[in-house]
Amino acid sequence: MTRRVEMKKNALKRLVPAVVNGQKQVPYKGVDGYLAKGRKAAPPIASAANYPGNGDKRVGSLAEALEACGLRDGMTLSTHHHFRDGDLVANELFDACARMKKRDLMWFPSASFPCHRPIIGHMESGVVHHIEGSMNGPLGDYCTDGKMRGMGVLRSHGGRWQAIQDGEVHIDIAVIAAPCADAFGNANGVIGPAACGSLNFALADSLYADKVIVVTDHLVPFPAVPWQIQGNNVDYVVEVEKVGDPSKIVSGTTQITKSPDRLLLAEMTARFVRDAGIMRDGFSFQAGAGGTALAFAIYLREMMKKAGVKARFIRGGSTKYLVEMLNEGLCDYILDGQTFDLDSVASMRDNPRHVATSPFTSYNYNGKGFFGTLVDTVVLGATEVDVNFNANVVTHSDGRLLHGIGGWQSCLFSGCTILAVPAVRDRIPVIVDEVTTITGPGELIDVVITERGIAINPRRHDLLEAVKGKGLPIRNIRDIQKEVYEMCGGKPQPPKRGKVPVAVVKWVDGTVIDSVWKIER
Amino acid sequence: MTRRVEMKKNALKRLVPAVVNGQKQVPYKGVDGYLAKGRKAAPPIASAANYPGNGDKRVGSLAEALEACGLRDGMTLSTHHHFRDGDLVANELFDACARMKKRDLMWFPSASFPCHRPIIGHMESGVVHHIEGSMNGPLGDYCTDGKMRGMGVLRSHGGRWQAIQDGEVHIDIAVIAAPCADAFGNANGVIGPAACGSLNFALADSLYADKVIVVTDHLVPFPAVPWQIQGNNVDYVVEVEKVGDPSKIVSGTTQITKSPDRLLLAEMTARFVRDAGIMRDGFSFQAGAGGTALAFAIYLREMMKKAGVKARFIRGGSTKYLVEMLNEGLCDYILDGQTFDLDSVASMRDNPRHVATSPFTSYNYNGKGFFGTLVDTVVLGATEVDVNFNANVVTHSDGRLLHGIGGWQSCLFSGCTILAVPAVRDRIPVIVDEVTTITGPGELIDVVITERGIAINPRRHDLLEAVKGKGLPIRNIRDIQKEVYEMCGGKPQPPKRGKVPVAVVKWVDGTVIDSVWKIER
Repeated sequence: MTRRVEMKKNALKRLVPAVVNGQKQVPYKGVDGYLAKGRKAAPPIASAANYPGNGDKRVGSLAEALEACGLRDGMTLSTHHHFRDGDLVANELFDACARMKKRDLMWFPSASFPCHRPIIGHMESGVVHHIEGSMNGPLGDYCTDGKMRGMGVLRSHGGRWQAIQDGEVHIDIAVIAAPCADAFGNANGVIGPAACGSLNFALADSLYADKVIVVTDHLVPFPAVPWQIQGNNVDYVVEVEKVGDPSKIVSGTTQITKSPDRLLLAEMTARFVRDAGIMRDGFSFQAGAGGTALAFAIYLREMMKKAGVKARFIRGGSTKYLVEMLNEGLCDYILDGQTFDLDSVASMRDNPRHVATSPFTSYNYNGKGFFGTLVDTVVLGATEVDVNFNANVVTHSDGRLLHGIGGWQSCLFSGCTILAVPAVRDRIPVIVDEVTTITGPGELIDVVITERGIAINPRRHDLLEAVKGKGLPIRNIRDIQKEVYEMCGGKPQPPKRGKVPVAVVKWVDGTVIDSVWKIER
Repeated sequence: MTRRVEMKKNALKRLVPAVVNGQKQVPYKGVDGYLAKGRKAAPPIASAANYPGNGDKRVGSLAEALEACGLRDGMTLSTHHHFRDGDLVANELFDACARMKKRDLMWFPSASFPCHRPIIGHMESGVVHHIEGSMNGPLGDYCTDGKMRGMGVLRSHGGRWQAIQDGEVHIDIAVIAAPCADAFGNANGVIGPAACGSLNFALADSLYADKVIVVTDHLVPFPAVPWQIQGNNVDYVVEVEKVGDPSKIVSGTTQITKSPDRLLLAEMTARFVRDAGIMRDGFSFQAGAGGTALAFAIYLREMMKKAGVKARFIRGGSTKYLVEMLNEGLCDYILDGQTFDLDSVASMRDNPRHVATSPFTSYNYNGKGFFGTLVDTVVLGATEVDVNFNANVVTHSDGRLLHGIGGWQSCLFSGCTILAVPAVRDRIPVIVDEVTTITGPGELIDVVITERGIAINPRRHDLLEAVKGKGLPIRNIRDIQKEVYEMCGGKPQPPKRGKVPVAVVKWVDGTVIDSVWKIER
């Protein structure tokens, strides 16, 4: 399939479509360059007269609930990704839609995973028109092959909230898989066989969708506490045998990297945070659940203990290591967007200092501020970073769309944003002249740490000053690049991409920061 | 002042104004007779670019914050009543408005108390145009004397949420006094010298107002946890010396009635709940903090212990007696709208089974159901009840407006609504031919319990059947009335009211259920 699409150049000189899936777009205008106007989306007013007085909103099946919600061709259906690669509900949802002979639906997940490969079949058959949401693995591949009828739209967790809140995406029916729920629709993720932590990636869906269906395999008598999803926003409740595969939802144990290079990287990052003076009483940090970030937290923990320093809060994605830090008194709070293992699910359930956050509190740029700007330092990954510190997390150097943005973009607003990346990955240099897809602008990326040295963004005089004489291997980013290019035999191969955009990457304010292009074979 | 107001007769044959404060009204159409249409109010989209990146939203004074919010003549300003008669902020707010020479403001409190008497001065001088909200004491008196320029509008807690949510009341600036807050605006009521429990009467204000100011006397480093009010909805934070008088916010000890008549009434109510079969494993009840309701809960507690019965949940207003029941394992949860003493504040802070509810979850009729319909039995008071079981909680038999509705109207939707009232109050009969002001329709009131006997609404065949042979003093409501009339020397004096409506009472769906009339002297 080919399309004629009018393209515009945005503030980063990237070509982006003027119109995406029929909606006019605003090209990226700079980090704080675009101020949204107008009023938020207004969901329909309900009346308790239309809901059962005994609070029992159960219906017999997902199909019955969809029927009752008035499912029609062309509607937008949303799901969440708290079950990650163990989700069983999204596939069941579109199987039901197929049986109901619906067509041209838009799937609006908070993220998709390899387990959602069957959705490709529904796109082939016309049940699903296209996907707006992070596409990890096979669906991203399908999109970069130019096979999807609509354009993919990648949004960060915060950007997804913004798009729903601002009415850019109108959800007709939200389907919220819940590890625990009551018949009224109150639901949470901390109880039940498929416990996953919070359900807050589905919070905006529950607030703004026209109709909301809760699907659960663990029904409890009213009230299901905590009500992360409020039954007062829910239309129907469906009981099923199993909402997710627990072994794929959370791993019993979280894996720290065993690679000596990555361990070096992690330790260097912790040393940087300590020696730059960021690690001080009352500070805060965020580190994800990737092997390197995990190892960073463990190194930092030892440094904190040694220095007698206590953090005010740590931002999760949480793991048992963060939970141990909370229990050891190394921080007052964990503010947690998602839990990555069973220890952190239990901690979120039992410890009031392990607080569930939502994309609204943590990341929504079109709010009255967001927590992301209050974090002292954040350690993130990237597939590529360029010599101007622009970074890519969604595509590989071959142009293939393989990852979602997650909270990454909003995290860039921290006091000191660190990308901890290997200088070389599979013999391909990671520091490049220009990244394949700009996911985050260089002006927000303060430090790039590789096993070959630490590059500080020249904009951050304060950091350059702070680390003077600390014995850290501070280097110019171009020097590291040059060294790696020499080692790998030059620049990476440019991607074989054509002129047809197949997806766009949104910035946190809803503008388009870059395009993903169809791969020519 | 006199007004010419077009009046219409509603479904209860009460005359109600067609227009109130310039807004067209819908006369009450029956309990489930009016289904709202349309979409909810849409608050303005904000942008983080307009808020400090370090999250510090503090300004020097309330006046400065009001200035920054663009305070103008004629605006609507809201406050909450969690501090009850100990509130210091609402008066300070309108003093500031007066100093800023603003006029014709509408005050939209969740309730007002005798401590707010100074607002009368601001109405006399023109700073405040009128009040929409419960008026306890002197302000109600002022209103029934016909002195307020606009019409009073009384809404229940649920009705206030509904009105904000549905855009019937647009709040320009919400001022939220908080016992604990951080500089970002996260706020709660469980910590600090003015701790009052939750802040959820201000939740709708924080979600829907154009501008939100948090005023606190106890600032903590980010994050203030729990964030009952989310800083992401807050524009400015103001530190003051004192937001409330703790001795008037919560009483150290809650008073049980010592009156033998009231104790008899309370015991009879508990016996009714037990003998009608409502008190069974997994049941639920709500009882307020009035002396009789309190004594009821204490009698019921003993009966539950004796019978080995455990409740699934108890709805607060909570007191130390409910907290003891929770701690003794007599219920799984307290679902709590407001805390009436320090023990319950501490319990809400420390016990995850003591859950703060909001008017949205508990009472909002224009939602997808509300908790009120899920409570098995509720014990309430009333100033008057008539032989058709219609009841009044806002005016006295002399026509004076002296009380707010609170959660009362939404509570009527419980499985068994009991009014526990003395048959005579100050030598005035409480059971009358027709109540002065209908606040709740008789079809929702199931049982009237007085010290002289129990009257069951004839509509409730099931209850009449359930108590047969249980030795309870079941009587016809008219027999009780007759006995009391004979004792008091006949009917109560009709109120000396004229033909000018000075306030309206809204039903939970936003329709007008009755009018309050100017008292002629």
